[in-house]
Amino acid sequence: MTALAQETLKDEIARVYGTPAVVIDLDKVEANIARLQAVCDAKGVANRPHIKTHKSPELARLQVEAGARGITCQKLGEAEIMADGGIDDIMVSYNILGEEKLGRLGALQRRVRMIVAADNPVTIAGLPKAAEIAGRNLEVVVECDTGRKRAGVETPGEAVELAKLIAGSKGLTFAGFLMYPPEDGWERTQIFLDTANAGLREAGLEAGIVSTGGSPNIPNIGKLKGATEHRSGTSIFNDRMQVAAGVATLEDCALSVYATVVSRAGPERGILDSGSKTLTSDTGGLDGHGYILEYPAARIAKFAEEHGFLDLAASNERPDVGEVVRIIPNHVCVVVNMVDRLITVRGDKLIGDMPVAARGKLT
Amino acid sequence: MTALAQETLKDEIARVYGTPAVVIDLDKVEANIARLQAVCDAKGVANRPHIKTHKSPELARLQVEAGARGITCQKLGEAEIMADGGIDDIMVSYNILGEEKLGRLGALQRRVRMIVAADNPVTIAGLPKAAEIAGRNLEVVVECDTGRKRAGVETPGEAVELAKLIAGSKGLTFAGFLMYPPEDGWERTQIFLDTANAGLREAGLEAGIVSTGGSPNIPNIGKLKGATEHRSGTSIFNDRMQVAAGVATLEDCALSVYATVVSRAGPERGILDSGSKTLTSDTGGLDGHGYILEYPAARIAKFAEEHGFLDLAASNERPDVGEVVRIIPNHVCVVVNMVDRLITVRGDKLIGDMPVAARGKLT
Repeated sequence: MTALAQETLKDEIARVYGTPAVVIDLDKVEANIARLQAVCDAKGVANRPHIKTHKSPELARLQVEAGARGITCQKLGEAEIMADGGIDDIMVSYNILGEEKLGRLGALQRRVRMIVAADNPVTIAGLPKAAEIAGRNLEVVVECDTGRKRAGVETPGEAVELAKLIAGSKGLTFAGFLMYPPEDGWERTQIFLDTANAGLREAGLEAGIVSTGGSPNIPNIGKLKGATEHRSGTSIFNDRMQVAAGVATLEDCALSVYATVVSRAGPERGILDSGSKTLTSDTGGLDGHGYILEYPAARIAKFAEEHGFLDLAASNERPDVGEVVRIIPNHVCVVVNMVDRLITVRGDKLIGDMPVAARGKLT
Repeated sequence: MTALAQETLKDEIARVYGTPAVVIDLDKVEANIARLQAVCDAKGVANRPHIKTHKSPELARLQVEAGARGITCQKLGEAEIMADGGIDDIMVSYNILGEEKLGRLGALQRRVRMIVAADNPVTIAGLPKAAEIAGRNLEVVVECDTGRKRAGVETPGEAVELAKLIAGSKGLTFAGFLMYPPEDGWERTQIFLDTANAGLREAGLEAGIVSTGGSPNIPNIGKLKGATEHRSGTSIFNDRMQVAAGVATLEDCALSVYATVVSRAGPERGILDSGSKTLTSDTGGLDGHGYILEYPAARIAKFAEEHGFLDLAASNERPDVGEVVRIIPNHVCVVVNMVDRLITVRGDKLIGDMPVAARGKLT
């Protein structure tokens, strides 16, 4: 893309949509989808992308058309929107609890294949209610923790106990294991899985699904012997964290936030019209709140809700008031979650916009 | 409220809405509105609450009915929703730039009284376009910085120059000064204002509006000689930051997030179904990501997008999987911005829900 074409595109987006504008380049999105699918295919591992990043049925369909086996959601509300959008194989990688959610899970399972996660007996005790509503068995994977200390049982012994509990529950099918190995925790994860599988065999059970996750783990796909599928969310768009992790380049970043410089009250500082209500306070452990493509030496030092504080001290080139800049955010998943629509381009051509249909579906 | 009534309310909210649920107590909201209005009345300063916190026309109308002169918005999109909701006196405390926004500003100014801020000549050069569309003069205040280093001119001299520029621009009326004094910066702000006013007098101008802002500044309302109005957002709900700043008590916090404990994989840890996509990563400089009313010694140590990591080491009482807890968030304005509706209660009675109509209006 020429610099002139880029300036023309910026003007057009500012004129049609105003800023801040969250923009995705569909050419890059499609390339990112294809790249992940190719890695999964080469390693013989099914692709089950996590839609938490884009929350858009249109993009989920692109992923499935490219070869994904199904999708992953983090919330039932997301799964409902995706099922409405034609996706028929959905894992919710989360403990589903409470009467309200179990009713909705049952209704979903009547329509599409649902797989849910559990890491405790209370969750498992509730799930038969959903299966009863669905009128057919519900697949349940046991979530296992191998180092992140998030959800998940901490030992293979507990994993096997829960597998047996699921297998013995009316309406439930033990489907396998859900894992989210730390990037440096694959050896530990292998030992966990091998030990758990040995326990399963003794109990006459088998893990049909062994699901791993994480975009920073894409280079590790295939490393875990016995893994059947991988869940990757962020890689559809990529962001500054993925670039910092060495799994994407700036060129692979499909999403940028178009922001306007609204104030330049001091020579070394400026204000962008994008603050924590657009770019969010997720730093991802990085310095500064985003990478400005036009001013790489400028630092987004801090945020108010609708103000991004620009520190221009290290930048020889400095933007004027009224100038539109493009920002690669630190963490793209939370940025998409702030907006009701994504503006779509292909290279230097404005295409239109796409609803973030599953945004705000917290429950 | 008895503990039993609270448990019954929790069950009801979980059953009807599921969790996470963002809940406001209208009794407390009304008391908070009345308290701010009483302070403003006692000090003879008009009340112009900032609706960025609640983004709801219903609540803005309550504020105006209680005596507010008008409201403050940070974005034109918010102002449009508020004008649709019957509010007819709106300040947008922000530099408005670009053809798209100027057209919308003009359309708004045809319908209601609009006041906008400017801190630079580029913004001022654009505003006559809006006035032309409106067919009547637009009021413009000069944004002044007295220590926050956000937007705003840094010297009284610049403020007077911009006032003259506004007064000399076709279609614009110089309306006064917009200030946001740091909590410890009122002396400096007085000197700035006095100097700027002297400059105005020399130019034959006058600041009809001198607007101060900030909920932590409520105890300072009336301190600035010459101030005519105050903008306070957060105080309608309050949050952990306001409590930490000593301007509210936990009892004054009208908004809480109802969350379910979904995992207890280790004895000293747990997971809530509310992460950075609900409570946001805004820490407000505080330790931990919220105050759990039922377990004050529990710490929300970190977030994934949909996971709140509970550190229970210091808590003798520990919640079980499936238990619903209530969290006072660190920063309430960004939490409201995550959801499409607020659930409303009065004491222990569930009332219903209210749309966050201006959410997602980023431009």
